[in-house]
Amino acid sequence: MDNPTPQKLVILGSTGSVGRQALDIVRAHPERLCVVGLGAGNNVKLLAEQISEFHPRFTYYRGDQALAPPGDYKFTEMQEMATHSDVDIVVAASSGASGLSALLSAIKAGKIIALANKEALVMAGGIVMPLAKKHNASIRPVDSEHSAIWQCLAGEKSPPSRIIITASGGPFRNYSQAELAEVGVEETLKHPSWKMGKKITVDCATLMNKGLEVIEAHWLFDMPFENIDVLVHTQSIIHSMVEFSDGAIKAQLGAPDMHLPIQYALSYPHRWDNHLTPPLDFSQISKFCFEQPDMTRFPCLKLAIEAGKEGGTCPAALCAADEVAVDMFLSGRIKFGHIPLIVDAVLSRHRKIQNPSVDDILCTDAESRIIAQEIAQQEKLLCC
Amino acid sequence: MDNPTPQKLVILGSTGSVGRQALDIVRAHPERLCVVGLGAGNNVKLLAEQISEFHPRFTYYRGDQALAPPGDYKFTEMQEMATHSDVDIVVAASSGASGLSALLSAIKAGKIIALANKEALVMAGGIVMPLAKKHNASIRPVDSEHSAIWQCLAGEKSPPSRIIITASGGPFRNYSQAELAEVGVEETLKHPSWKMGKKITVDCATLMNKGLEVIEAHWLFDMPFENIDVLVHTQSIIHSMVEFSDGAIKAQLGAPDMHLPIQYALSYPHRWDNHLTPPLDFSQISKFCFEQPDMTRFPCLKLAIEAGKEGGTCPAALCAADEVAVDMFLSGRIKFGHIPLIVDAVLSRHRKIQNPSVDDILCTDAESRIIAQEIAQQEKLLCC
Repeated sequence: MDNPTPQKLVILGSTGSVGRQALDIVRAHPERLCVVGLGAGNNVKLLAEQISEFHPRFTYYRGDQALAPPGDYKFTEMQEMATHSDVDIVVAASSGASGLSALLSAIKAGKIIALANKEALVMAGGIVMPLAKKHNASIRPVDSEHSAIWQCLAGEKSPPSRIIITASGGPFRNYSQAELAEVGVEETLKHPSWKMGKKITVDCATLMNKGLEVIEAHWLFDMPFENIDVLVHTQSIIHSMVEFSDGAIKAQLGAPDMHLPIQYALSYPHRWDNHLTPPLDFSQISKFCFEQPDMTRFPCLKLAIEAGKEGGTCPAALCAADEVAVDMFLSGRIKFGHIPLIVDAVLSRHRKIQNPSVDDILCTDAESRIIAQEIAQQEKLLCC
Repeated sequence: MDNPTPQKLVILGSTGSVGRQALDIVRAHPERLCVVGLGAGNNVKLLAEQISEFHPRFTYYRGDQALAPPGDYKFTEMQEMATHSDVDIVVAASSGASGLSALLSAIKAGKIIALANKEALVMAGGIVMPLAKKHNASIRPVDSEHSAIWQCLAGEKSPPSRIIITASGGPFRNYSQAELAEVGVEETLKHPSWKMGKKITVDCATLMNKGLEVIEAHWLFDMPFENIDVLVHTQSIIHSMVEFSDGAIKAQLGAPDMHLPIQYALSYPHRWDNHLTPPLDFSQISKFCFEQPDMTRFPCLKLAIEAGKEGGTCPAALCAADEVAVDMFLSGRIKFGHIPLIVDAVLSRHRKIQNPSVDDILCTDAESRIIAQEIAQQEKLLCC
């Protein structure tokens, strides 16, 4: 039977883009899903509204709890929430490195993890995946590309031979290198097909996001980097593809809307009605276009794949450098073209640890952030 | 473990296009597949060659056995071959109505059936599918479209909400109605993407083949006709798609080559290496195009779907009328544009039996063939 009792959810990052859409799905399926925990980092006003709507048993707030509007709630530790015996699924949607320790706790507690925080896997895939195996914790991808791959692998008894991750190409796909160097924040935040948070939208424009997804796919699906291709598909309808040894390719398609992959991570192995994602209408689709990504104009893609192949703490240094560089770009302090320069310089200075512990990774994260700041200053990249 | 002992195959229709390609797969996987029976209808010379190569225990020939070249073999009954206890998989690739009784026998013997004979399902889906369920016989589709749908359904716990069958559109996709009426045999047999037998190649040009596939999909996947769409996709790379209630669509892609779906019907649930089908190379693919089929210029598609919805003996009358009309076209006796006229007229005269027996279906087949001939004469369609 299809989920006789509601699944009990904790949502880490409930005020972010994925968290808010996960709550849309809870609203649409109250008989199947029940919120027992909400956690947020920096929007206590929205968190308070969510608490008053969903009445979770646990709530966590990373910022200054004194700023929370008055209400009938008390805050707990993220750890307690993510590991409590009364929790079935943890939606790990807090962004960046901050979600890593909560993720590891949830894994140790053997939870089902709906994983939207790609940085956790990029930085610590070599720790996360073996730990999940050891504790029998299921990791269900939420990223649309990885959800597509996962959907295509359902029921397959033979391993895939190749993964083809599709990319919209971002808003600057046809820009020259000179034009790219000068693009502004506002135009960068206008993604052609997806609505997402600011950091990831900038990562889409540099193609860093696609590089992080390659690393994520490497870990999630145990696939060598040589067998992961990136393919630009401007319509963002094919969300990714998988090839098998007999030459068959399977693809998952859908409107570019995150409700679908988020819901599948909650409904798996079933599928539920979904009135949040508009259905695809092939009477309105005349073509799909494909092209190869240009790593010269978009060096972040190449930097990420190289850091992934290099392994050890390199992907953690990459993530940290990118987070700082994007933050500086968003606040108008560096130019768009400086983002790959900073990431490249941080990676060049980084001294890799081959089989890092969680502490090694967190140290790399902290150090690389400082180095990124230093580089921006030393290289006189800062605009003001 | 992946098939520890070779699967024992009978191939009905071994000298046809699908049969010959099935034997290519046996040659490529001798440790996994073993031929125990071969049957053919009208190419005894090739059958004799196949016998001397594969040394099957059983052979069947429908034509005049006295014409067989000398060799170390004796012929048996198709029935005996398709039902023998030492047979695992029956590849049902004899074309047209002739394969129906052998198929029903194999089903009653609980065999795995790799079904390439779509006419059997079109004519008798209402008998074939319940019988397969009763006798626990697996029916594995071989048609590339139905194989694609079947591959997309692997591992899915929820039923699909829609099936989208793709169509190349045939060689005359952009012809006007006036041009279509006059096309010749030679140009009709030049299919833009698939290499197949003559009858099916003509059916592709009229889109009758796509209509038969809609009826086949209706039976194989228990899908109402209203939820089966036909989509013209000129590149023939997406072989078909399946939509689910959450809005996700899954597609199977590959080079247009029948070795892949034939092999999957033999390797299921595993996948084997396949050096017969060229791999897809997305660096050489710049776009997929889509358009809606035009049922005015291609009335056979509409006639087939209507006959499918009408049910009973109507699809059998459709198949028989089409087989006769295509045969008359191939021998230069009627024009291309007469094919739908004959099929339409046969269907108009046909008196439907709602829940037909096998005999009712075979009678409909025989009667409709005669009526098709009569109509061609009465309507003065014959060229000579």
